[in-house]
Amino acid sequence: SNSTKNDVTASKEETLFQVSTINSLLAGNYDGFMTFSELKRHGNVGIGTFNALDGELIMIDNKVYKIESSGAVVEVPDSDKTPFAAVTYFDQDVTKSLSNVASLDMLEQELDQLIEDKNSFYIFRIDGTFNTIKARSVPRQEKPYPVLSEAVKNQTVFNYDNISGTLIGLWCPEYIGGVNVPGYHFHFISDDRSKGGHLLDVRFDDAKAFMDVTDGFNMIISPTNSDGVVNDLNSEIDAVEK
Amino acid sequence: SNSTKNDVTASKEETLFQVSTINSLLAGNYDGFMTFSELKRHGNVGIGTFNALDGELIMIDNKVYKIESSGAVVEVPDSDKTPFAAVTYFDQDVTKSLSNVASLDMLEQELDQLIEDKNSFYIFRIDGTFNTIKARSVPRQEKPYPVLSEAVKNQTVFNYDNISGTLIGLWCPEYIGGVNVPGYHFHFISDDRSKGGHLLDVRFDDAKAFMDVTDGFNMIISPTNSDGVVNDLNSEIDAVEK
Ligand SMILES: [Zn+2]
Ligand SMILES: [Zn+2]
Repeated sequence: SNSTKNDVTASKEETLFQVSTINSLLAGNYDGFMTFSELKRHGNVGIGTFNALDGELIMIDNKVYKIESSGAVVEVPDSDKTPFAAVTYFDQDVTKSLSNVASLDMLEQELDQLIEDKNSFYIFRIDGTFNTIKARSVPRQEKPYPVLSEAVKNQTVFNYDNISGTLIGLWCPEYIGGVNVPGYHFHFISDDRSKGGHLLDVRFDDAKAFMDVTDGFNMIISPTNSDGVVNDLNSEIDAVEK
Repeated sequence: SNSTKNDVTASKEETLFQVSTINSLLAGNYDGFMTFSELKRHGNVGIGTFNALDGELIMIDNKVYKIESSGAVVEVPDSDKTPFAAVTYFDQDVTKSLSNVASLDMLEQELDQLIEDKNSFYIFRIDGTFNTIKARSVPRQEKPYPVLSEAVKNQTVFNYDNISGTLIGLWCPEYIGGVNVPGYHFHFISDDRSKGGHLLDVRFDDAKAFMDVTDGFNMIISPTNSDGVVNDLNSEIDAVEK
C-alpha cells in the first residue's frame, strides 16, 4: 500500500484478505463457501483453490482463472465458490528488474532483498518470458475428502518452455502458524491465459517484479468442518507445497 | 455474531480486531501505535496492553481501563496508544449460568462446552461476585525493551476476596500460531472499576457467562520492530500467561 507508517487505518488497499486457513485446507476442508463475486470485492490479484480442490486458482486483473489438472485453463463464473484464497488490491509499492534467475530458490533470494519488515505481508506480480516453468495442478476430490497431503499425490506436473506470462505470489511472515504458509507461494498463468499452475520451479533471463506490502490482514473462517486430521502441520505444508 | 452460516460478509460485528501479533509482543515490541479512539472504532470489549507495557488493558462497555502494576485502575485518554490488543463488538450469542467453579481450569472446562467450532474465535463476558480473584499486572518498561518473558518477572500479583466484577476473555484456535495465544486469556475488572488485572486464578459460586462467536479476524501489523528475539514461541507464551 501507499500508506504512511502513521496511518494504521485498515483501508481495503492495505489489507490482505484471506478465505479460511491453511490448517483447515490441509485437513481436507475443500467445501467452497465464498463466491467469487464476493471475493472480488476484497481484491484484484491473488491465489487459492476451488470447491472440491478442483484446480489451482489465480486472480489477475480482477479475473479468476482455474488451471485444471488436465492443464486446461478456464475463467470461472462469479457464482462459483472458494474454500481457500488470499487476495488484495494490488499497489506497486516497489518495482525491480530481475535477471538470470536459474531456479525458484534463486527467485526467492532475489525477492528476499525487497522484504524489509518480516512482520508484514507481501504480494508479488512478476511479468516476463520464462525459459522454463514447472507447475502443477490437482484433480477434483470426492467426499469424504482426503487430507491435502494425500490429495496432492495425484497432482499433474506441467513443463513449459519459452512462455510469456505472470507469476502472482504471496509472502507470509514466520509467525503465521496454521493460518497460511510462511514464506513464498506462487501461481503462474500465461499471457494467452491457456496455461498455468502452482509454481514448482522457474528459470528466466529477464523479468519485471512488482511488489505490494500490506500491514493489514483480514480473514473469514470456513463455516464447514474438516474431514481429515492434520498431525504435523509443518511436514504437511512441506508435502503439499513442493 | 448473529450472522447465519451463509452470510460470510465481514461486517464489523462479526470480526475480532487485533492490533499487532503476540509474536511481536513476546519479542519486546511495546511501542504503542494505535490510539484508543481508533481502537474503539473496532469494538467495545477486549483485552490488551499499553505503550511501554505499562499495565493490563481491559475494554468494557467501550471504555478502556489500565490496571497499573501498583494495582491502581485508571480510565485512559483516547489519545493514548496500544502496541497489542484484541477487541470486538460484543454480541450475546450464547448465555450460560455458571455454578461452583473452584479454579480457572474449571472455568475453562465449563466454557469448553460452549465452543462448538474450534476454528472460530470466541469472546466471553462473565459477570459475578467472585470468592477469590488472583490477578497480576506488569510495570512500565524502559528501552531497550526486554522480551516479554523477562518483563513479566517483575509482575505484581493481587489477591481479591468477595469481589463483584467482570471477566473479559478471548479464546483463539490452535492454528493461530504466533498471531495470538491459543486457548483462553482473561482480564478482570471490579464493578467499582478500582481493581483488576490479567487473570491467574478464580473461584466463585455463581456467575453469568455471555459468549460471542466470530468467524472473522482482522489484524494490523505494528510499524515498529522488536528489540528482543524469541527463540521458542510456545515456552515463551507459557512463561508470560501463567
Ligand atoms: Zn498453490
Ligand atoms: Zn493478559
